[in-house]
Amino acid sequence: MTTATGGLTARDTEFLRELGQQLRVDSVRCSTAAGSGHPTSSMSAADLIAVLLARHLVYDWHRPDDPGNDHLIFSKGHASPLCYAMLKAAGAIDDDELLTFRRFGSRLQGHPTPAIPWIDVATGSLGQGLPIAVGIALAGRHLDRLPYHVWALCGDSEAAEGSIWEAIDRAGHYRLGNVTAIIDVNRLGQRGETELGWDVEAYRRRFEAFGASAIVIDGHDVEQIDKALREARRADDRPTVVVARTIKGRGVREIEDHDGWHGRALPPDMAERAVAELGGVRDIVVETRKPPPSDPLPPREPVEITLPTYEKGDRVATRKAYGDALRALGARPEVVALDGEVSNSTHADEFARAHPERFFEMYIAEQMLVAAAVGLSVRGYVPFASTFAAFLTRAYDFIRMAAISRANIRLAGSHAGVEIGQDGPSQMALEDLAAMRAVHGSTVLYPSDATSATALTAAMADTPGVSFLRTTRGAYRVLYGRDEEFRVGGSKVLRSSDGDQVALIGAGVTLHNCLAAAEELAGQGVQARVIDLYSVKPVDVETLREASAVTGGRLVIAEDHYPEGGLGAAVMEALALEASPPRVAHCAVRGLPGSGRPDELMEAAGISASQIAAAARQLVNGGGA
Amino acid sequence: MTTATGGLTARDTEFLRELGQQLRVDSVRCSTAAGSGHPTSSMSAADLIAVLLARHLVYDWHRPDDPGNDHLIFSKGHASPLCYAMLKAAGAIDDDELLTFRRFGSRLQGHPTPAIPWIDVATGSLGQGLPIAVGIALAGRHLDRLPYHVWALCGDSEAAEGSIWEAIDRAGHYRLGNVTAIIDVNRLGQRGETELGWDVEAYRRRFEAFGASAIVIDGHDVEQIDKALREARRADDRPTVVVARTIKGRGVREIEDHDGWHGRALPPDMAERAVAELGGVRDIVVETRKPPPSDPLPPREPVEITLPTYEKGDRVATRKAYGDALRALGARPEVVALDGEVSNSTHADEFARAHPERFFEMYIAEQMLVAAAVGLSVRGYVPFASTFAAFLTRAYDFIRMAAISRANIRLAGSHAGVEIGQDGPSQMALEDLAAMRAVHGSTVLYPSDATSATALTAAMADTPGVSFLRTTRGAYRVLYGRDEEFRVGGSKVLRSSDGDQVALIGAGVTLHNCLAAAEELAGQGVQARVIDLYSVKPVDVETLREASAVTGGRLVIAEDHYPEGGLGAAVMEALALEASPPRVAHCAVRGLPGSGRPDELMEAAGISASQIAAAARQLVNGGGA
Repeated sequence: MTTATGGLTARDTEFLRELGQQLRVDSVRCSTAAGSGHPTSSMSAADLIAVLLARHLVYDWHRPDDPGNDHLIFSKGHASPLCYAMLKAAGAIDDDELLTFRRFGSRLQGHPTPAIPWIDVATGSLGQGLPIAVGIALAGRHLDRLPYHVWALCGDSEAAEGSIWEAIDRAGHYRLGNVTAIIDVNRLGQRGETELGWDVEAYRRRFEAFGASAIVIDGHDVEQIDKALREARRADDRPTVVVARTIKGRGVREIEDHDGWHGRALPPDMAERAVAELGGVRDIVVETRKPPPSDPLPPREPVEITLPTYEKGDRVATRKAYGDALRALGARPEVVALDGEVSNSTHADEFARAHPERFFEMYIAEQMLVAAAVGLSVRGYVPFASTFAAFLTRAYDFIRMAAISRANIRLAGSHAGVEIGQDGPSQMALEDLAAMRAVHGSTVLYPSDATSATALTAAMADTPGVSFLRTTRGAYRVLYGRDEEFRVGGSKVLRSSDGDQVALIGAGVTLHNCLAAAEELAGQGVQARVIDLYSVKPVDVETLREASAVTGGRLVIAEDHYPEGGLGAAVMEALALEASPPRVAHCAVRGLPGSGRPDELMEAAGISASQIAAAARQLVNGGGA
Repeated sequence: MTTATGGLTARDTEFLRELGQQLRVDSVRCSTAAGSGHPTSSMSAADLIAVLLARHLVYDWHRPDDPGNDHLIFSKGHASPLCYAMLKAAGAIDDDELLTFRRFGSRLQGHPTPAIPWIDVATGSLGQGLPIAVGIALAGRHLDRLPYHVWALCGDSEAAEGSIWEAIDRAGHYRLGNVTAIIDVNRLGQRGETELGWDVEAYRRRFEAFGASAIVIDGHDVEQIDKALREARRADDRPTVVVARTIKGRGVREIEDHDGWHGRALPPDMAERAVAELGGVRDIVVETRKPPPSDPLPPREPVEITLPTYEKGDRVATRKAYGDALRALGARPEVVALDGEVSNSTHADEFARAHPERFFEMYIAEQMLVAAAVGLSVRGYVPFASTFAAFLTRAYDFIRMAAISRANIRLAGSHAGVEIGQDGPSQMALEDLAAMRAVHGSTVLYPSDATSATALTAAMADTPGVSFLRTTRGAYRVLYGRDEEFRVGGSKVLRSSDGDQVALIGAGVTLHNCLAAAEELAGQGVQARVIDLYSVKPVDVETLREASAVTGGRLVIAEDHYPEGGLGAAVMEALALEASPPRVAHCAVRGLPGSGRPDELMEAAGISASQIAAAARQLVNGGGA
């Protein structure tokens, strides 16, 4: 194989065609062995991947962590047979393993996941791979400053997802010549023709209008592919989109360009005919270009972080404390921040001012915001992404997938609950605790004061997986002194005695209401324990268990959230198997809120101090049902 | 005012300028009275709305339900001061009410909501108003076949949201000449300049590439505005986008085009100067063109629906039953269906084949899918929107907002849980019950067999608010005979006796595992009650209470979902205040699943029949903690 910088010899062309056929054959074989999968969607892109692998991808398959490696993301994750066939052609896996595709226990899952070392992120929810690729490219261009290239193989169907356009646009904005989207325009979606069919010029117009260089090619002509990918690699400050006209099921007459063959493995007899038509099984192993030798990245020097401190009793919003802490964490060079055009509300602007070179404005595009964080996490950075907590719901599918990708991302959602006041319900996060708790392996934190917000922000930097910090709009009293320690999975008992008759459990703004309620109850002769349940997931079971035991199982939980799945559920789930589970009075937002002052709205929702106290009295008096 | 079909006289021009100034003055006054809000974002669009209101909008303000009325959606919901100032200028509200803006109890909330009869949907989460407008236009063009026009006032910042492009694209695809987006390009977002600033030609290129007619104008030149809106109204089969270059805070020198004035009310002294500079308070009331007289829509004739029936013991997937039921419901002319390019998996294709004129393919764009359903609901249709349950998470912000919009939409999510098998975790909904339960006023249904799936699909048609049906990929035994009745909020006790020692609670696929577990337990001398908790929200408290009482508070809950916020939480929340809450053993998906056969994956997750039986035995023996 000649170098990628020149044109193709006749022998190169023949080799690439053979390699493409091998990728097809193996896509058919592994999916037929599995009895399911997407061979036809793999066959359309086989020549694209053959040329990429043999001539343009820079990758050391023995060192998937080499910082100089290119990145290749199968945004069309259902082309996993092609992905695994490529791994075989690269010598990364053998033929036996290829044939374990989709079996229980095999790392070759139905859609690619990082269970395999050569896969950066999980794909399979369309429209996500390209935005994540843009996040990686952001790191490459603006942080790593390394010449690796980021390639994303996309389907044509997924161009219907708005997130694709968020990605192309932001790639243009950040001058990411180091990312290339290869669009496999095979015309056929799952249940028929795509919206644009083979109108490759429509794709070209769109991608160009969004700031990319678009190159339209025949996706089965290896010379055209080679030329386009060479151009893409050389691009300077604009992303490249290779719009490749292809044929679904290419190479096998029985299925080529036939509707009704999406996501179907060929039955064994058909597969046998297909393999024969494709020229039989091959075992070509490609030597991929390796990145130039590089020293392993030096281990990160521990950096002393001086977190901001606050005076007890001062009024400071937790969102402000988040920004202050983030700015301080910026002393660690791997910490980066992103925001969805509301950094002056989330206070990510504190970081942006102090470390502008590591702050990325994602504009109002929360899907791209989270995807970029995932991409930065792939490169080992410690990303914090912020917007209003209500608007993180916009990226819920991306957050769900980030968990499957085993990405380490930190999300900060400000303006939680009815407490925000006048802006009204569209801006109020009232379902975020439920949604974020349900993300696999997530950490959910909800501090009530500036000291704990600061400490928990710092803790997030070292917390793996998806972590979420819920912050409050208004400024409330600082409750904790500067030496107080907070840990993921912890809680604080702010008021207690052996004679406690009831425990009031809050987090965030409702903790302040719980404290006021305890005061009121004390005046009425009722002793109430108060627990700051700042770690909503994982939750501090021991402290809850003890509170239940001391109070005879009388808990009041107050949360600025709808009643389902939030703080209340976290406590109940934790104590579900106790020998004697507690009785729980649950103060939560049951009606649809409107606008008003925070105190008016909390009163209307039934989560004010006096309402918490009333619930506690009823429980102590044996009522409440 | 001359008619909108001709050009403007000098007097018209003067009138429109005055009206624009009034809208500015009132935007300043109401936000200053509230002490918060977005006057500058209102002032940039004041001339656009003045011309629209006085010359192009067709609307009878006394009959907001007139089927001939145009629709006007403030996609930039933060321009609510302008919206309410417009309502005053239309004579719909008076000046006193205008000044209640953002006060507790006022219907003039921080962002528009349908608490006001002239507002179709809640906005304030950017990028949603235009997609919903496209849904309304779909109804106008393809179902109502009425000449009303749908106008959406959009911000320039929200063009960063991919959902805007999903909307324009689908509007072009469905030839919706009856929808116009007016983009208020005031250059300044919340925290600085937008990505494209005043590059109106970049907007033009993008909108044109996506299939719209784009008209670039000076958004403060009433003649240009008038001409553009006239052209937009006359458009035949392409959506129109009016790209209006405007100035934020226009008309008040102290704030005009100044950064730092987003979302800030003017202090009283500044407001006084601003009102003076704008020419003082005015009380112009505009006579809007009314739609031609029309008879009220005839009441819908009740239609006899013959639901499909299944034989007990046959194996039928609930997703197939959903499709069958939906097809039958199609006998009601107001029932419409939409899908996200997976109708052959969700089985919405059953409806599509039977009623093609009422089926809308939204391609792979779940945000637009839900937004279109909301738009169709605005016009009184009964929309069912389907995709894989995992991918409804893509539209979670839209679903959240649909609840605030009080929209009546039905969502069907197929392929729930690890049960889907080989496709792997990207395609598995495992957090959907938590997310959907947390939506305000939602209904969450999860049938386990074809008979109940059919009945619940039919029930959804008459269920207000956001309802969600979770369906299963595989075919399982039909459990219920054709005369069995199912209701929202109900459940079924499938196996019981007075001597029940434990209750097994499942829904969907896990109900089958619970039934098998009960068999196993019976063989071991343990009597287990089995409950089909098909209505996850609202939940059947009485049946749960009785089960807890009979079994001495021993419940096993099994769900194909992550442990947080799903079926388990639904039961615990329902019984939280019982005098003696139950002990709950919770079988749920705790690890990150991979690929495999459904039985292998359920076993690996700990939700198989034998594992449910083991949990029950432990509970009966007093253990489990």
